[in-house]
Amino acid sequence: MGDILPTVKVAAVQAEPVVLDREATVEKACQLISDSAANGAQLIIFPEMFIPTFINSAVWGRGLCNFGMPNTKRAWSKLWQNSVEVPSDTTDRLCKSANDAKAIIVMGFHERESQSRSLYNTILFINSDGKILGKHRKLMPTNHERLVHGTGDGSTLRIYDTPVGRIGGLICWENWMPLARFALYSQGEQIHIAPTADDDERTQINIRNTAIEGGVFVISVCMILRKKSFPKDFDFKQELGEAREDLEIGGSAIIDPDGSYLAGPLWKEEGILYAELDLNRVVEQSQLLDVAGHYTRPDVLSLHLNDTPQNVLKKTTKPA
Amino acid sequence: MGDILPTVKVAAVQAEPVVLDREATVEKACQLISDSAANGAQLIIFPEMFIPTFINSAVWGRGLCNFGMPNTKRAWSKLWQNSVEVPSDTTDRLCKSANDAKAIIVMGFHERESQSRSLYNTILFINSDGKILGKHRKLMPTNHERLVHGTGDGSTLRIYDTPVGRIGGLICWENWMPLARFALYSQGEQIHIAPTADDDERTQINIRNTAIEGGVFVISVCMILRKKSFPKDFDFKQELGEAREDLEIGGSAIIDPDGSYLAGPLWKEEGILYAELDLNRVVEQSQLLDVAGHYTRPDVLSLHLNDTPQNVLKKTTKPA
Amino acid sequence: MGDILPTVKVAAVQAEPVVLDREATVEKACQLISDSAANGAQLIIFPEMFIPTFINSAVWGRGLCNFGMPNTKRAWSKLWQNSVEVPSDTTDRLCKSANDAKAIIVMGFHERESQSRSLYNTILFINSDGKILGKHRKLMPTNHERLVHGTGDGSTLRIYDTPVGRIGGLICWENWMPLARFALYSQGEQIHIAPTADDDERTQINIRNTAIEGGVFVISVCMILRKKSFPKDFDFKQELGEAREDLEIGGSAIIDPDGSYLAGPLWKEEGILYAELDLNRVVEQSQLLDVAGHYTRPDVLSLHLNDTPQNVLKKTTKPA
Amino acid sequence: MGDILPTVKVAAVQAEPVVLDREATVEKACQLISDSAANGAQLIIFPEMFIPTFINSAVWGRGLCNFGMPNTKRAWSKLWQNSVEVPSDTTDRLCKSANDAKAIIVMGFHERESQSRSLYNTILFINSDGKILGKHRKLMPTNHERLVHGTGDGSTLRIYDTPVGRIGGLICWENWMPLARFALYSQGEQIHIAPTADDDERTQINIRNTAIEGGVFVISVCMILRKKSFPKDFDFKQELGEAREDLEIGGSAIIDPDGSYLAGPLWKEEGILYAELDLNRVVEQSQLLDVAGHYTRPDVLSLHLNDTPQNVLKKTTKPA
Amino acid sequence: MGDILPTVKVAAVQAEPVVLDREATVEKACQLISDSAANGAQLIIFPEMFIPTFINSAVWGRGLCNFGMPNTKRAWSKLWQNSVEVPSDTTDRLCKSANDAKAIIVMGFHERESQSRSLYNTILFINSDGKILGKHRKLMPTNHERLVHGTGDGSTLRIYDTPVGRIGGLICWENWMPLARFALYSQGEQIHIAPTADDDERTQINIRNTAIEGGVFVISVCMILRKKSFPKDFDFKQELGEAREDLEIGGSAIIDPDGSYLAGPLWKEEGILYAELDLNRVVEQSQLLDVAGHYTRPDVLSLHLNDTPQNVLKKTTKPA
Amino acid sequence: MGDILPTVKVAAVQAEPVVLDREATVEKACQLISDSAANGAQLIIFPEMFIPTFINSAVWGRGLCNFGMPNTKRAWSKLWQNSVEVPSDTTDRLCKSANDAKAIIVMGFHERESQSRSLYNTILFINSDGKILGKHRKLMPTNHERLVHGTGDGSTLRIYDTPVGRIGGLICWENWMPLARFALYSQGEQIHIAPTADDDERTQINIRNTAIEGGVFVISVCMILRKKSFPKDFDFKQELGEAREDLEIGGSAIIDPDGSYLAGPLWKEEGILYAELDLNRVVEQSQLLDVAGHYTRPDVLSLHLNDTPQNVLKKTTKPA
Repeated sequence: MGDILPTVKVAAVQAEPVVLDREATVEKACQLISDSAANGAQLIIFPEMFIPTFINSAVWGRGLCNFGMPNTKRAWSKLWQNSVEVPSDTTDRLCKSANDAKAIIVMGFHERESQSRSLYNTILFINSDGKILGKHRKLMPTNHERLVHGTGDGSTLRIYDTPVGRIGGLICWENWMPLARFALYSQGEQIHIAPTADDDERTQINIRNTAIEGGVFVISVCMILRKKSFPKDFDFKQELGEAREDLEIGGSAIIDPDGSYLAGPLWKEEGILYAELDLNRVVEQSQLLDVAGHYTRPDVLSLHLNDTPQNVLKKTTKPA
Repeated sequence: MGDILPTVKVAAVQAEPVVLDREATVEKACQLISDSAANGAQLIIFPEMFIPTFINSAVWGRGLCNFGMPNTKRAWSKLWQNSVEVPSDTTDRLCKSANDAKAIIVMGFHERESQSRSLYNTILFINSDGKILGKHRKLMPTNHERLVHGTGDGSTLRIYDTPVGRIGGLICWENWMPLARFALYSQGEQIHIAPTADDDERTQINIRNTAIEGGVFVISVCMILRKKSFPKDFDFKQELGEAREDLEIGGSAIIDPDGSYLAGPLWKEEGILYAELDLNRVVEQSQLLDVAGHYTRPDVLSLHLNDTPQNVLKKTTKPA
Repeated sequence: MGDILPTVKVAAVQAEPVVLDREATVEKACQLISDSAANGAQLIIFPEMFIPTFINSAVWGRGLCNFGMPNTKRAWSKLWQNSVEVPSDTTDRLCKSANDAKAIIVMGFHERESQSRSLYNTILFINSDGKILGKHRKLMPTNHERLVHGTGDGSTLRIYDTPVGRIGGLICWENWMPLARFALYSQGEQIHIAPTADDDERTQINIRNTAIEGGVFVISVCMILRKKSFPKDFDFKQELGEAREDLEIGGSAIIDPDGSYLAGPLWKEEGILYAELDLNRVVEQSQLLDVAGHYTRPDVLSLHLNDTPQNVLKKTTKPA
Repeated sequence: MGDILPTVKVAAVQAEPVVLDREATVEKACQLISDSAANGAQLIIFPEMFIPTFINSAVWGRGLCNFGMPNTKRAWSKLWQNSVEVPSDTTDRLCKSANDAKAIIVMGFHERESQSRSLYNTILFINSDGKILGKHRKLMPTNHERLVHGTGDGSTLRIYDTPVGRIGGLICWENWMPLARFALYSQGEQIHIAPTADDDERTQINIRNTAIEGGVFVISVCMILRKKSFPKDFDFKQELGEAREDLEIGGSAIIDPDGSYLAGPLWKEEGILYAELDLNRVVEQSQLLDVAGHYTRPDVLSLHLNDTPQNVLKKTTKPA
Repeated sequence: MGDILPTVKVAAVQAEPVVLDREATVEKACQLISDSAANGAQLIIFPEMFIPTFINSAVWGRGLCNFGMPNTKRAWSKLWQNSVEVPSDTTDRLCKSANDAKAIIVMGFHERESQSRSLYNTILFINSDGKILGKHRKLMPTNHERLVHGTGDGSTLRIYDTPVGRIGGLICWENWMPLARFALYSQGEQIHIAPTADDDERTQINIRNTAIEGGVFVISVCMILRKKSFPKDFDFKQELGEAREDLEIGGSAIIDPDGSYLAGPLWKEEGILYAELDLNRVVEQSQLLDVAGHYTRPDVLSLHLNDTPQNVLKKTTKPA
Repeated sequence: MGDILPTVKVAAVQAEPVVLDREATVEKACQLISDSAANGAQLIIFPEMFIPTFINSAVWGRGLCNFGMPNTKRAWSKLWQNSVEVPSDTTDRLCKSANDAKAIIVMGFHERESQSRSLYNTILFINSDGKILGKHRKLMPTNHERLVHGTGDGSTLRIYDTPVGRIGGLICWENWMPLARFALYSQGEQIHIAPTADDDERTQINIRNTAIEGGVFVISVCMILRKKSFPKDFDFKQELGEAREDLEIGGSAIIDPDGSYLAGPLWKEEGILYAELDLNRVVEQSQLLDVAGHYTRPDVLSLHLNDTPQNVLKKTTKPA
């Protein structure tokens, strides 16, 4: 009697990293993956820049913008040293954890490349068999992040067809970019992942709008970050700048395609939100509105996506 | 002696689907293909939206137009679940059936895409070797269908040069579009296929006009649909709307290029119409009138067909 | 309470010309105009080539096609001598008649040009104030007509916005040309005039199809023509060829936009058909089908009409 | 000391049309314009399809979808008769009203064309000097509207640089189309006008999201519509369908670029919302987020807008 | 005797803007142009962002990076209000000044666009006849500037062939981009203009290296900026951040193609540096080294410059 | 706590060859390698053309440029006879020395090929295990060198990922080529090796600029060369030309990524410069400037490197 789409259980992990300590943060992540999987989660999402920490504007912004701030370069170096290459021992460990949990993992971190020194704001998609599906680099850093991260290109703006559905993701304020969202909708996205860090009422509006507009489930995953969680030897005044105690207060939520809350928002504490997503809901909602399908006008409006990888060095023998 | 064109035997299958059950409808279709082929048919045509059912205005129109109608989304979901992807197991099965029958099959169904959620009103052309020739998506849904189907583009407005002649097709009220008909005539169409659903006297006028105007054979294939054939648990009042018992009463017919009936019309019962089409008739008729040939004025009137596939997403690496 | 369109009375004049006598035929026409107006007709339509006669294939075709037929040139000369220039005394007389009747007249005749010797198959539109609205020359002569008439161009393929509605017309088999019909529909035609000569069942299909397809009223006006009506000194055997007694037997009809008969068909006798056309019917029908409006796809299919007058001589001093 | 942008006063007119009576609705509109202007409004917005009425799904949808519903065509005809041509006496009257009020008017209505019979869902922009700035036709009708309206093209997807700022508008669910919104943002829109009809919580999310995403003021104008306001001789059962008493309950609101309410939402009653819009707010908000400016990636994602008018008939002499 | 290139007199204007006051800064600039021209200068260069002020990291960086800083948006708005459109009254005034002085002017400012809200770091080239030659937008903002400016594209990366030689320019740290410098060398640059703001020993190395590497004259123009020069009502603590008194201390210099100083560096005071540039020096130096000429290897290394303007909106009717 | 990069000790060997005596020069080099390693050096760099001598312009240029100079061919022959093939006994000996020292060696020499007679200006990279990593041939000989050396191709323009970091090198004036430097930066270079010969103030500017621009350590290694060191039987007057006593006076230096001197410059004497390079410095500097990373615009400017080996003879049987 026809193709009934599956119902999948997802987990949004609102957690605090072990600030500026990649190995300890990965250790914590693997435990959270294991816990979520024990509760039946098939898709487990972490915040952006979970490894090794979100770079809060109050802490990092002031220091990075001021050439004269003492020791800013030391803080930057710590961040670089604790960033993640793909692939590397760090990703191997996350892949093993995914395979053990039989769950798809989406993990946010600062990425660095073996052949360069710039950092990128990246989320990694790992399949439930422990193989890397791909990654997405944030196209446009937000505000003070522009002092830390390079820009991604269109080659990572794609969705993945997985056992739990067609998933895609945008990072933090990328979710405000209409063309970026549309690039995912138009590839048949069903579950939209929005790893972010800080949150406020406007983010709640954005994620609910995305759910309705795209006819997709939205999983918004935010971070908890407290000043007291920084390394003991971190000198805020010297390295970056003064800051309030509660740097990031969460706000994770899971949204139905009709814009209603399936879980959350969860504020001011660590916690794992769970929800069962009946993918048939995506179909039901699209009868009335399908902005990349029957409710579009390709003859009038079309999106051009340059998904060719952009390399500043182009060799004749092989891609750089 | 010159080139004498072949005479081919065709079948117009006026049948009722197993309503809202894709697998059972395909099973029934394969049996009908086998029966037709046993009677010598080389080209076998089914109604539009045969899989999994025509969406009659009396039943579907009232529900879909009213946001407040309870359970409309459930009905829509059933339709989506029983729609057909191209290619898929469903089309594989039809292809095998065509190959077994050594006959060309034209089958109508609700099409869905793996990467999107909109539905399309599609007819599929399968060659007698079991290979897919192509498909045509209805350019413009009619009335309440606009609440169900997206629009096709010009890339599917073409004819196929097959062993039984140059065949093309338009779906239901597309046959009222002068420019769409002309697009097929001007590609050298010999047999014009018009899968439709409901029928009345006006359709008889239309198909006879098309035969004369285009100098083509016309095979109009209609549907039988009864209220009692809906699934037992289908709640008309709750899901869609009340309706009369005989929803679609057929009217299939096969028309000679001079406008006369070769078979049919057949009313109010299932049945297979057969006719032998002497393709030389197409040539004979064109001496007096050939609206895409000697009886045209390309210097004054020309049809522009945009047959580039329209995708709302355009990538640089490959067509979306 | 909104714009209610008018109801207009129309007359289809099925008559026989005074064969090969322009002046006498015009005299007869003026009388028929006067009679129709007396019955309330606001729009009065005559057959194609009413002045000075339709060139029936049985009579003319055989002779014209046969170079060896004696005296063919004499017959041709008579035809040329009795053809109509625009403007001329003949059209002045028709214009006066229209003004007297306060009716719009559409009249078919063989047209000749003062600066050339070719003949054209033309219908003239005269407004109810006696002013010429314009003319239409048949784009493509049919069969043996190609031995008599030149071809029209796109500059005459237009409609006229008159007190009785937006009227347009095609001559005889032009009505089989989908692109020519569409050219008129797409200009907002409400009343479609189809002056023709001979008629049979296929023409009935065509005019009813046009009415539904275009959502327009169709006035099909046919001719009565008998062998005995030829001039006494006309030597069929020598001039053209043998022929049956009843050369043209009429079949005029007036059709509603839903394809039903409002008047006629009238066979085998002269007579004037009348009908009252409620132009709101055109609007009502277009809700479901409007092939040049909401039921079209300009992004996929568009008609290019070259409506620039075509002159073989182009001068530099002014547009030809 | 630099260019300080003006503060402008705007009015969102939440009102009920005089149902199906164009002249009386225009009369009412002119009074509301006069009242708003007396209160200082420089920009006055009306709901979509204000003239002669919104076509509520509960009333119209059921009838239009059902070919068998008696008298549906009569209802459709009334709608057509009370629709608006541009230009016409109706628009002249609105223009005079705008000039008298020295205010910019945006008015929604059913538009018809003199040379065609399809209707369009159009908003008209009239400048404060009484001259028409332009119009926008809804690109894609929603649900049952697809049985009433044709589709607009890209030529009307533009903004207007007026004395009160750079204004643009989308109609009802067009506001859910990311590419349509972006087309306006990228032309420098400052005030986004969203004439709509019905409203619910999801619309509130959408308009607040649009304000933040685009960094624009949003003026959402909804309609009041009651069953009792239909003409006395309107037979719901025979013409269209039964319906609840409160057909449209408003929900108009004026939103700041930060997503907060400046006025409204106003529910269940007629009323005029006023707000003073300090256009400098648009600049302030864009420092952090400017999705068509510094927060975009034209090298990766670009929007192609086909703003060439689409005509199914293309003439050589001049645009149809 | 051959072609002896001219000797031209140039002026590097090291000055302080009237902070955040566009009109007063332009007034001051016009006076400095007049003074320089009186001393014989044919080419007069100003610092980057001279209008209405350089956005020093110590002042602006801290505030912009911290979303929580009170009144940051007010400071941003002041900047926007005092930014420059091209063309506008502001550029008209500069053009008049250039024409009066019969000198080429290169002026740095914050640019804004009439149809958008983002700011750009732009230098404008005005010819000695008062006509605008073109502009260059900085490709990549530096550090905290990324919170203020959008990015330029390749269309402005060009040189201008003027009466005083072939001039090109890069802004501030763009001068560290090897590919950007090479893009200008390879177009035949003779005088390289490097408007910048702050300066230190590394900048001296960079400009001398550029002179030798490119075989060009380099004119580096820096800014004087003091905390006390801000508007009296500017609240550093509330609007942006504390800062040292001497924000920018100059360091302007004019360099010979052999890397030696022709004038400057000038530190800690306003002043105009003058030098006479014998363009034949450019030729002399290229005998040994010509990195875009005989000392290059196009078969091995080539620079691809995408100089197509990048617009996020692309229309069919005309470039956006 | 993250990946801390190593600190490595390097040696820049400023020495004089045993002029025109390959074996004795190699002997001397091996001793210098042994000495440097005893002082802890892990990376030991020699000048360009150390074996068997730099071809100073004062000595060689005059002769080579003058066909009439007696005995020039004899001098050229001596040079060829003392040049180095790769591999050969000479390189085997250097490899053994590297292995003994457990140090990476970069050695400059005149290279000849077994299958050709041209000479190349080559630097050889030998790993600390005595295995050849690769070589780089100077792309473009400088001035009079064009009379001695052929040109290298893009296949040798690469970096090597070694235990002491990612090293690359350019020879002498190649360091003035912006595209060549960028080719190495963009491959992730950390230590940039610049074997050269003569030196002056401009070279100091160049190497400091390279360090800052690329964010790399620069090791510039120069030569000591005296007229008296030539073979006793070398007849300057007859063979090449007169020359000053001090032909090359050194100037070696080791530069930090911020442009400051870590060692040197050393003038007018042989000597070995040592420095400890903390590779984390490369990361720290890249936060502000990374010209091949976040501070680049691959969409606007990209470098195309043809790194396919260029052979004038191409065989069909296998890649040359």
